[in-house]
Amino acid sequence: MAVSPEQEHPKKAFGWAARDSSGVLSPFRFSRRATGENDVTFKVLYCGICHTDLHMVKNEWGLSTYPLIPGHEIVGVVTQVGSKVEKLKVGDHVGVGYMIGACQSCDSCSNNAENYCPEMIPTSGAKYHDGTTTYGGYSDIMVANEHFVVRVPDNLPLHGAAPLLCAGVTTYSPLRYFGLDKPGMHVGVVGVGGLGHVAVKFAKAMGVKVTVISTSPNKKAEAIENLGADSFLVSRDDGPMKAAMGTMDGIIDTVSAVHPLLPLIGLLKNNGKLVLVGAPEKPLELPVFPLLMGRKIMAGSVVGGMKETQEMIDFAGKHNITANVEVIPVDYVNTAMERLIKTDVKYRFVIDIANTLKSSS
Amino acid sequence: MAVSPEQEHPKKAFGWAARDSSGVLSPFRFSRRATGENDVTFKVLYCGICHTDLHMVKNEWGLSTYPLIPGHEIVGVVTQVGSKVEKLKVGDHVGVGYMIGACQSCDSCSNNAENYCPEMIPTSGAKYHDGTTTYGGYSDIMVANEHFVVRVPDNLPLHGAAPLLCAGVTTYSPLRYFGLDKPGMHVGVVGVGGLGHVAVKFAKAMGVKVTVISTSPNKKAEAIENLGADSFLVSRDDGPMKAAMGTMDGIIDTVSAVHPLLPLIGLLKNNGKLVLVGAPEKPLELPVFPLLMGRKIMAGSVVGGMKETQEMIDFAGKHNITANVEVIPVDYVNTAMERLIKTDVKYRFVIDIANTLKSSS
Repeated sequence: MAVSPEQEHPKKAFGWAARDSSGVLSPFRFSRRATGENDVTFKVLYCGICHTDLHMVKNEWGLSTYPLIPGHEIVGVVTQVGSKVEKLKVGDHVGVGYMIGACQSCDSCSNNAENYCPEMIPTSGAKYHDGTTTYGGYSDIMVANEHFVVRVPDNLPLHGAAPLLCAGVTTYSPLRYFGLDKPGMHVGVVGVGGLGHVAVKFAKAMGVKVTVISTSPNKKAEAIENLGADSFLVSRDDGPMKAAMGTMDGIIDTVSAVHPLLPLIGLLKNNGKLVLVGAPEKPLELPVFPLLMGRKIMAGSVVGGMKETQEMIDFAGKHNITANVEVIPVDYVNTAMERLIKTDVKYRFVIDIANTLKSSS
Repeated sequence: MAVSPEQEHPKKAFGWAARDSSGVLSPFRFSRRATGENDVTFKVLYCGICHTDLHMVKNEWGLSTYPLIPGHEIVGVVTQVGSKVEKLKVGDHVGVGYMIGACQSCDSCSNNAENYCPEMIPTSGAKYHDGTTTYGGYSDIMVANEHFVVRVPDNLPLHGAAPLLCAGVTTYSPLRYFGLDKPGMHVGVVGVGGLGHVAVKFAKAMGVKVTVISTSPNKKAEAIENLGADSFLVSRDDGPMKAAMGTMDGIIDTVSAVHPLLPLIGLLKNNGKLVLVGAPEKPLELPVFPLLMGRKIMAGSVVGGMKETQEMIDFAGKHNITANVEVIPVDYVNTAMERLIKTDVKYRFVIDIANTLKSSS
């Protein structure tokens, strides 16, 4: 007989889980493994709500198993470390992002790109090395191998730091990897949501000129005044879009809906790079001529490796970068999911786990 | 009153031109400018027939003006040089490729990428700096600024060298620019036509393992035995395609018809690069997920700059690389165009200009 989630491990744990593809979350008792010699155990303080959580609780990608505890923008404070843990100690502020395991021996892992390891293990809804299910950060405690835990700089407020673990590194990584981080460069950011707003902050901190590209003219003031963008383009305004053609070294495109690539390719200089970090479910139309005529590049990128996740959050600490968040109690999470569908949030929901997640026992 | 093509310049010239979008070529008298101080004048010996010539004579891209003399894979022997010409002398073997002018001051020009200059002047069917029409290499003499003329190594047979000026540099340039030239790498070449067959030869000479990907199983023997490819995949054979997934550092895709990208993206390793050098007229379907999941890149590339065109042909000289050609007399050119539509050529038609192009006067 299968062991129940509540009994398979020695540490009692409590969280909110979806039980089926309705995606409705509700309280759920389960368990976490004992702190292994390379493990870090931490009390979860905050957890961000990523759009992926929404896809997963509703099984929109056909990959979900239930019960499913989402959450991979997790920050907390260390309560226990294994005997071989070297870089972290009790009391440290730490974070866990999209992944909690990988093979650690393939080419990708050897090159600090565990996020592209074919055996990468997501933090939520996957099978861990020991065969048990991984449960995400909408829960009171986490246990993770220290390799997949980063230290969060002490100066960062933890609620604003949580989304950096996914949204942050998802935008920081391609800015670095594709060399769009040189002072004086001009980078476009398409979409000002959870991903886009931190992309703007990171690019600005790198010394890059940033233009936000959005379908909504009413996001202009905030993009410029609050986020620090240098300019703003409404993607449907043909005149300004035309005037901006050939001016950008690169674009970070955070939009996950189907959208036209041609105007974006047009904004690029020769040798410019259009990097997609959103994942539309249907194929996009790729016009080839405009790509050829300027030796332009289209690329995709997902989250980041552990080394660059640590670099990202250290860089955020140095430049006081956090996400703009709306902190919510855990019992608001189903409402938050509904609002997320309507992109009614500026710009990330973060669950106050420590103060609002209470086991009734 | 407009000056006739025969009278606008002092040098008498003769070639074959299309007069309208029927694309039928016929003898045409015109003129070339006097050899300017930076110019090289050469007797044309051979000219390759590129697929672009076919598009242009039939005005398939809506860019053509008539009369139109095609031809941008031109080789010959220098007969006169201007007073300031430094790198070439009478008697040298030379070549002219896709372009014959550029602004020579923009970012692209300053970085030896005149092919991406917004004011790049094609060798055929364009307006030169002086306002006169550029006429291509299906003609007896050429006059060009020495910057746009390369020296052809003496050891290369000129009929086989002609296609290198376009097909050669079109495939050599992305192999170098995208770093697909490291010994031990594995590169795929999609399509074995005029472009693909020289791509295989260049990649092999760089020490790269080459797999040809084709829709036609009957091209296998020749790809491996004649061109030197290491292996061959039929794009419709699911089993072998699946077995080859994730094995390629890059792919040079020479196909200009609409074709599926998903299987090609699947062949790439993480961080792999799919470079399109063919130009399908309709957009291709770009599946985004597979691009993201391996941080893969799609890029476009057209011909090459003058510095790398010289490098390419020097490299060809060193490794005895020429195109496989069918040499034809000029009066066969209309038949050759018909055969080109059916891809009935292995792998490039080259016109024997010197021996077959005769002015009746």
